[in-house]
Amino acid sequence: MRPKLEDVAKHANVSKTTVSRVLNNRGYLSQKTIDKVNQAIEELNYQPNVVARQLYNKKTNIIGLLFPTVANPFFGELAEALEKKLYEKGYKVLIGNSMNDSKKESDYLNQLLSEQVDGLIVGTHNQGIQEYKYENLPIVAIDRVMNEDIPVIESDNYQGGKLATKVLIDHGAKNIIHTNGPIELETPAKRRRLAYEETMKAHDLIPNTVTLDFNISYQEKKKIFYDLFESYPGIDGIFASNDMDAALILQVAKEKNIRVPEDLLLVGYDGTLMTRSILPDLTTIIQPIDEMAEMAITILMKRMDKKETEKEYILPVTLWQGNTSKKTPAN
Amino acid sequence: MRPKLEDVAKHANVSKTTVSRVLNNRGYLSQKTIDKVNQAIEELNYQPNVVARQLYNKKTNIIGLLFPTVANPFFGELAEALEKKLYEKGYKVLIGNSMNDSKKESDYLNQLLSEQVDGLIVGTHNQGIQEYKYENLPIVAIDRVMNEDIPVIESDNYQGGKLATKVLIDHGAKNIIHTNGPIELETPAKRRRLAYEETMKAHDLIPNTVTLDFNISYQEKKKIFYDLFESYPGIDGIFASNDMDAALILQVAKEKNIRVPEDLLLVGYDGTLMTRSILPDLTTIIQPIDEMAEMAITILMKRMDKKETEKEYILPVTLWQGNTSKKTPAN
Repeated sequence: MRPKLEDVAKHANVSKTTVSRVLNNRGYLSQKTIDKVNQAIEELNYQPNVVARQLYNKKTNIIGLLFPTVANPFFGELAEALEKKLYEKGYKVLIGNSMNDSKKESDYLNQLLSEQVDGLIVGTHNQGIQEYKYENLPIVAIDRVMNEDIPVIESDNYQGGKLATKVLIDHGAKNIIHTNGPIELETPAKRRRLAYEETMKAHDLIPNTVTLDFNISYQEKKKIFYDLFESYPGIDGIFASNDMDAALILQVAKEKNIRVPEDLLLVGYDGTLMTRSILPDLTTIIQPIDEMAEMAITILMKRMDKKETEKEYILPVTLWQGNTSKKTPAN
Repeated sequence: MRPKLEDVAKHANVSKTTVSRVLNNRGYLSQKTIDKVNQAIEELNYQPNVVARQLYNKKTNIIGLLFPTVANPFFGELAEALEKKLYEKGYKVLIGNSMNDSKKESDYLNQLLSEQVDGLIVGTHNQGIQEYKYENLPIVAIDRVMNEDIPVIESDNYQGGKLATKVLIDHGAKNIIHTNGPIELETPAKRRRLAYEETMKAHDLIPNTVTLDFNISYQEKKKIFYDLFESYPGIDGIFASNDMDAALILQVAKEKNIRVPEDLLLVGYDGTLMTRSILPDLTTIIQPIDEMAEMAITILMKRMDKKETEKEYILPVTLWQGNTSKKTPAN
């Protein structure tokens, strides 16, 4: 019987992952480990599939996308934009949904890596995963802080947070709540929160950020928003962290007979084509999805060509002025 | 230099695809072609990567999903449901967006096949692609008629079309338009159209189905709906082929000061969690996404175990009675 990968691992007294990394020349490994694995490969006369792979074209022409969930319209439209643009350049995409689960994210990453994609575009929200340190795989991140080596493409979250807060204040809201994700996550979206809190303080208003988990259902979220109105009966403005949350808040307000914009001003975030088409009344901050996709691809291609790139690319956001934030300051 | 796949192809005077098919034992090939390719492999002493692959575990534990676009909430939620359930069973998913482009669909299919997924769940809308005839890859289709060998999981589109049309008629609408995709496509959604047309005729009403292309933008669709109201000023009911279209129609009606439900009754289709959460007023037909995902996986697993399956699995739909279809028959 021919030797298997796991035989090599056993022989060298290392994990299968380590053998795989040596074979693919990826990840941080000591020279000692590399030598030990190579020796085991020789002694067992193991024939790895990479050799066979190199008989083919070495490029796979596949770009991996790793997103929390494409069921969120922001990621759905981002995935679509990336797919269209990459296809025009001769690449296909394969998408993994991490569901913001770091175990899942890590599994997908290993899988995508072991399937040898030419590059990876990551838009997930989990904390630093070691696999992102794989050395020879070009990676760019969208709207997420990875590690120092990986360039991040993002929209101007600080400016977006400021615009959103300002539009509420300018139209007369004083008791403004901001909903955001857990503070531990290292996302550029944290800057929206910072901008909100700084802008509130600059106007002598008290910031109040309510954190929501990502993975809860629409029904659970609605329940939280119901409770929010109970806990803070004086709310007159909400800056929601995304448009889906804003749409749910609109719905809850309607069911509770809270009039928007008369009693409550509301601003969302993301401004996808879908939201603007089916809920054009919702004031929101538009993230430039198409430009972000374009930039992510440009930077990824640079990385694939071993060219130097910046660490961060910040693209401008714009305000979509709907009717949910219009109220005369006198009111 | 070691021989490559293309050297084998040249030597045997066949395409690279044909060589790949022989190596993977897939697709319809004559014995003559198979012999010719095998002879070329022997003469050149070509070593295909499948051999090396078999040194590893033969299972990839990856299921491929091929959908038109995850930017549509129905497919976004379906992909999420499939991903969650498959992950629990130890599988990961990779998603390809075909954008209803048969060239793209075919490219993805070849790619997914060449990456040797363990199985494939297809929800695209294009016409018969030859690759679906690959023999050794377990495939199930969702909401799409493939070929005779591939089981289809679908919701009860005829019943859904009938329910949608009935609710409009029961509330007093007479000039009812149905929007649907191009009639050439062999989708079970065609049964919605059939149900609409038969139900209209059974009530002595004249059916009028307007066909829309899939790949047009929200803006283009809105333009079409604007024109629709111009062309048919007497419309008092619309059965839209999906909720996104219904949401756009709601928006166009609002902009044209057509009151819903007073002047126009409206029913959508799909009833995703998202639609029901952010647009609960929209009457729609709920496709049981979760159950469809569950069934698709059960059937795929059966196919992977070489067990027999039915040709078609039809799951029940339900009516979501919102306010867009409520009008007293007297009106």
